[in-house]
Amino acid sequence: MKKIHYTDVEELKVEDYGSTSTTIRWLITKEKDGATNFALRRFEVQPGGEIGMHNHPQEHEIYILSGEIEVITETESFTAKTNDVLYVPPEEVHGYKNNGSKTVSFLCVVPYL
Amino acid sequence: MKKIHYTDVEELKVEDYGSTSTTIRWLITKEKDGATNFALRRFEVQPGGEIGMHNHPQEHEIYILSGEIEVITETESFTAKTNDVLYVPPEEVHGYKNNGSKTVSFLCVVPYL
Repeated sequence: MKKIHYTDVEELKVEDYGSTSTTIRWLITKEKDGATNFALRRFEVQPGGEIGMHNHPQEHEIYILSGEIEVITETESFTAKTNDVLYVPPEEVHGYKNNGSKTVSFLCVVPYL
Repeated sequence: MKKIHYTDVEELKVEDYGSTSTTIRWLITKEKDGATNFALRRFEVQPGGEIGMHNHPQEHEIYILSGEIEVITETESFTAKTNDVLYVPPEEVHGYKNNGSKTVSFLCVVPYL
């Protein structure tokens, strides 16, 4: 059993896909913890920040911890709020934008494929 | 893309392992959502409630959303609080007990092996 606080994990800038004002913490990983099936990450997106549109073979399971964020796909755009849950299927193009005045934090689980 | 609020998902009693005053919501699953690699669940343990000691081949990745809970293994016992993260390796015996006065909620991700 391992216990950490999320702030024990290094906060890294997310710069892929033209992302701005966004950080990631890899809370549980294969390399660090021997978790061979999936990784648990925690994102923070500052007001005005965004994660650019992208896609990949892995699905995402997401839980919004705090704040409100615009979720964008090729066919729709909607707001996700605290305690909302998202499922992003494999290969679906997706991005996020914080149009509000508060930092958004969310968990995102991704499989090791 | 699918969005739900966690309360959109049926809340079920957890009665395995002698558990008491505990509920689970299966937020994202293979059967419901086509998520083939892992499931995202949200637990609530009421004051005085517990999840009995048990083990299984799947690992857990856990994020404490609110409250404080006693985490028990065969070799140790400690308190996990809001924004703490737990990794339970495959086959490790584990249980939880809410000794406080507030409901504890946490997310727990489990792979489909």
